[in-house]
Amino acid sequence: MLFQRNTWYVAAHPKDIDRQLQRRIILNDPILLYRAERGQIVAIEDRCPHRFAPLSRGTLFGDVVQCKYHGLRFDSSGHCVLNPHGNVIAPHNRVRSFPVEERHGLVWIWMGNPEGARADTIPDLSYMTSPKLRTAHAYINPEYRYDILVDNLLDLSHGDYLHAGSFMGGACERSETLVSEDGNDVIVNYIQWRAPAPPSIPGLPDTVNQSFKIRWHPGQVITFEYRVTPLDGDLESAAPFRFAHIATPEGEHKTHYFISFTRDYALDDPENDARASEQRVAVVENEDNPMLRAVDVQMAGRELMEMRPVILPTDRGALAVRRKMQKLINAETAKESA
Amino acid sequence: MLFQRNTWYVAAHPKDIDRQLQRRIILNDPILLYRAERGQIVAIEDRCPHRFAPLSRGTLFGDVVQCKYHGLRFDSSGHCVLNPHGNVIAPHNRVRSFPVEERHGLVWIWMGNPEGARADTIPDLSYMTSPKLRTAHAYINPEYRYDILVDNLLDLSHGDYLHAGSFMGGACERSETLVSEDGNDVIVNYIQWRAPAPPSIPGLPDTVNQSFKIRWHPGQVITFEYRVTPLDGDLESAAPFRFAHIATPEGEHKTHYFISFTRDYALDDPENDARASEQRVAVVENEDNPMLRAVDVQMAGRELMEMRPVILPTDRGALAVRRKMQKLINAETAKESA
Amino acid sequence: MLFQRNTWYVAAHPKDIDRQLQRRIILNDPILLYRAERGQIVAIEDRCPHRFAPLSRGTLFGDVVQCKYHGLRFDSSGHCVLNPHGNVIAPHNRVRSFPVEERHGLVWIWMGNPEGARADTIPDLSYMTSPKLRTAHAYINPEYRYDILVDNLLDLSHGDYLHAGSFMGGACERSETLVSEDGNDVIVNYIQWRAPAPPSIPGLPDTVNQSFKIRWHPGQVITFEYRVTPLDGDLESAAPFRFAHIATPEGEHKTHYFISFTRDYALDDPENDARASEQRVAVVENEDNPMLRAVDVQMAGRELMEMRPVILPTDRGALAVRRKMQKLINAETAKESA
Repeated sequence: MLFQRNTWYVAAHPKDIDRQLQRRIILNDPILLYRAERGQIVAIEDRCPHRFAPLSRGTLFGDVVQCKYHGLRFDSSGHCVLNPHGNVIAPHNRVRSFPVEERHGLVWIWMGNPEGARADTIPDLSYMTSPKLRTAHAYINPEYRYDILVDNLLDLSHGDYLHAGSFMGGACERSETLVSEDGNDVIVNYIQWRAPAPPSIPGLPDTVNQSFKIRWHPGQVITFEYRVTPLDGDLESAAPFRFAHIATPEGEHKTHYFISFTRDYALDDPENDARASEQRVAVVENEDNPMLRAVDVQMAGRELMEMRPVILPTDRGALAVRRKMQKLINAETAKESA
Repeated sequence: MLFQRNTWYVAAHPKDIDRQLQRRIILNDPILLYRAERGQIVAIEDRCPHRFAPLSRGTLFGDVVQCKYHGLRFDSSGHCVLNPHGNVIAPHNRVRSFPVEERHGLVWIWMGNPEGARADTIPDLSYMTSPKLRTAHAYINPEYRYDILVDNLLDLSHGDYLHAGSFMGGACERSETLVSEDGNDVIVNYIQWRAPAPPSIPGLPDTVNQSFKIRWHPGQVITFEYRVTPLDGDLESAAPFRFAHIATPEGEHKTHYFISFTRDYALDDPENDARASEQRVAVVENEDNPMLRAVDVQMAGRELMEMRPVILPTDRGALAVRRKMQKLINAETAKESA
Repeated sequence: MLFQRNTWYVAAHPKDIDRQLQRRIILNDPILLYRAERGQIVAIEDRCPHRFAPLSRGTLFGDVVQCKYHGLRFDSSGHCVLNPHGNVIAPHNRVRSFPVEERHGLVWIWMGNPEGARADTIPDLSYMTSPKLRTAHAYINPEYRYDILVDNLLDLSHGDYLHAGSFMGGACERSETLVSEDGNDVIVNYIQWRAPAPPSIPGLPDTVNQSFKIRWHPGQVITFEYRVTPLDGDLESAAPFRFAHIATPEGEHKTHYFISFTRDYALDDPENDARASEQRVAVVENEDNPMLRAVDVQMAGRELMEMRPVILPTDRGALAVRRKMQKLINAETAKESA
């Protein structure tokens, strides 16, 4: 499976991009990120076309980056605007620029043909910036391929085993997994009946019904609506807890992993943000990461389906995503060669 | 040279295998080792067929291993016996299991076609468990390919140079190397006349005759009978010191190296075991390992014979082993493709 | 671009080669360097032809090296002169020997066909040992390919950016680059008009004219004559400061980097040597190395011209060198296949 390029990926948290030049590798491409003087975020190739120096080692003059090696300057569209050595600027003296949008409290980058970059195809995560909610964000950079993480997130039955004790517990036998599609999105509904209540939520009876409504978007943006009720409650109408896991591919064995958790209380409490992030990151780092890294090592860069895995009913969501991804990537490849 | 699969290899010392799940890579295959409730040792593939998680990260329920990732359970024959997600078990929902025998104080594993695994082809190391003898064992895991170690062990003339001062000294000019075969075993008799006495054995005159009778078995099990006498003694009838070096291939640049030394005194003295092991491991780690690692680097994964080495008379044993190995591997390959 | 073999490379500083056996990899070949009893330097392949042990782990007996592994002895021409195991010496029981010359205060090695090694083709660096001058030497071993360093040295316009503040400053707009050839040498004259005076040289007005006359020799020996005068001075007739940068290829991502600085004062002051070396090495390590290493990573072993770089006027020298190198390498390849 190649990467899909013609889609929006999350590149960063807005707070992490400022006037400091910052390098981030996405889909194996080195990207330079910085904030222009008026505040908009710039993403250009982090590789000078002259001698391939990382522009991120350079200096910002206004919105123009000066390469540290020989002083060529590039504007925020990637065009060379100053060549101090004779000041002739060849037409190909430029670096790629990437469409960027700041939306829903995230920085989105379009890695494919810029002509296709329409901001209205950014997935709707508007709840993240709703004035009635507050979203805490975290970022980690683990060493496994993005699809190993996506498989993990779309099959929550792993929670009873990998996260036993942390927040799930032993009801996967009484669960069902419903998969549907909505355009290019894949929707997985994972419902558990008579499950032990999650220890992290106070005020619940010992045994509950719970559901996870998971929406996957091709940019590897995965949102969750978690609902929990007493056994006689109505799951459908319960107010959801919302969280999102986003898996932007860095390279063959590395992923930019953005985790967020949204709450409808303590809206003015940044300490609550920190606590919420720390707890979730700790679970991922202590429980998911070692396992997913071990899986990445055992897969050794091979494609899952070529390894003829045993398929379980709970894989339905992940397999629907893989089929969708293969279709999108095939379409992209066909278009390129046409 | 590929690895030979249809042979018994030493996987571990029995004392190191217990109810803890343990991962060991042999011939590039990840193996899960543990002891069943009744005590027999189990060896199954350490890679769940569902998502390729290492089963060694899981938990033992009786003799059944539960995968830590999604909870599939596998019995000691490698068959899935519980799928908590719907409990349908596909026929290929199993991992390979490997025949294992505990014999002569060692754990033996058969890495090839299980149908060929006959315990009576395990090399006879019964002296190791003789009530009149005591064997001290050590294990190290150096970073060179197994055949570089085997070459080293079959050509003891290196002792005068690599181990000068440690236990041999300067008589390789007055030595002879006799090579013969016994079925698939190769036997090397290395005799030194008028050699300086080894410093580690008390009570010898300054100058001695000594012989090493080396038996190589295709599982890279190499046993030594060392005899030393005054110049007027009878080497043939002298009581031997016995030791064994076993080189189970881990991968292209790594070896499981089992060293043992057997004595006919101090039979109830575990401190003597520790001392004997420490001394021998120290010589290997300080003298052999740096050289063999450097050779592995300079060979860079190439086959010895393709590099057209200079051949010395003392290479006869190692070359007989290489011819034998090539024959065994060719036969195995022919059988597979037939 | 392959390496050119039929040329003289600098292997070491004479003071660093003594009776200790020393291993150095040049053009991917392991080389053993030592000084024979009468003082001449020996360079032979550092890989015993028997089992490929590094001879540099062995011992010197007179001018003969004994391999630490099995005791074969090789003379300074690379021929086996003692085989303690039967003492038959096969005709191919030898290692390559490499012509070596000690000249101009440097150790030169010829990596190609020894028949072509004529000492009179060593580049004339006789100024280095002139009794009226004193040359301070330094050696570092950075992790980038030699041609990335050569490009850096032949285009001094990088000084205004990468070394801003250290010793150049902001006049590349008022510079010219003149390129010519002299046999296989490429000569680059880089002149700056009305440049800020270099902070390291006392007694200059604030603004000066300066020139760098750079001579590149195919063994990647690059000498510099730096001249600086007040604006009304005569650059041509000014006494030069001389320095040299030499980039002997080690492997695909590693270079032996010899730096020297020659002065016409303080001829008997070794502390001045140390200070001069330290200052220059500090600039290279703090400013050039991080950039060149980053470029090496971004080029990922590809050839510069295949990456279709933007060409600037200041690249003229480096491009002339690349054309020359390609011609020399093509000629060498054609000769080999003829």
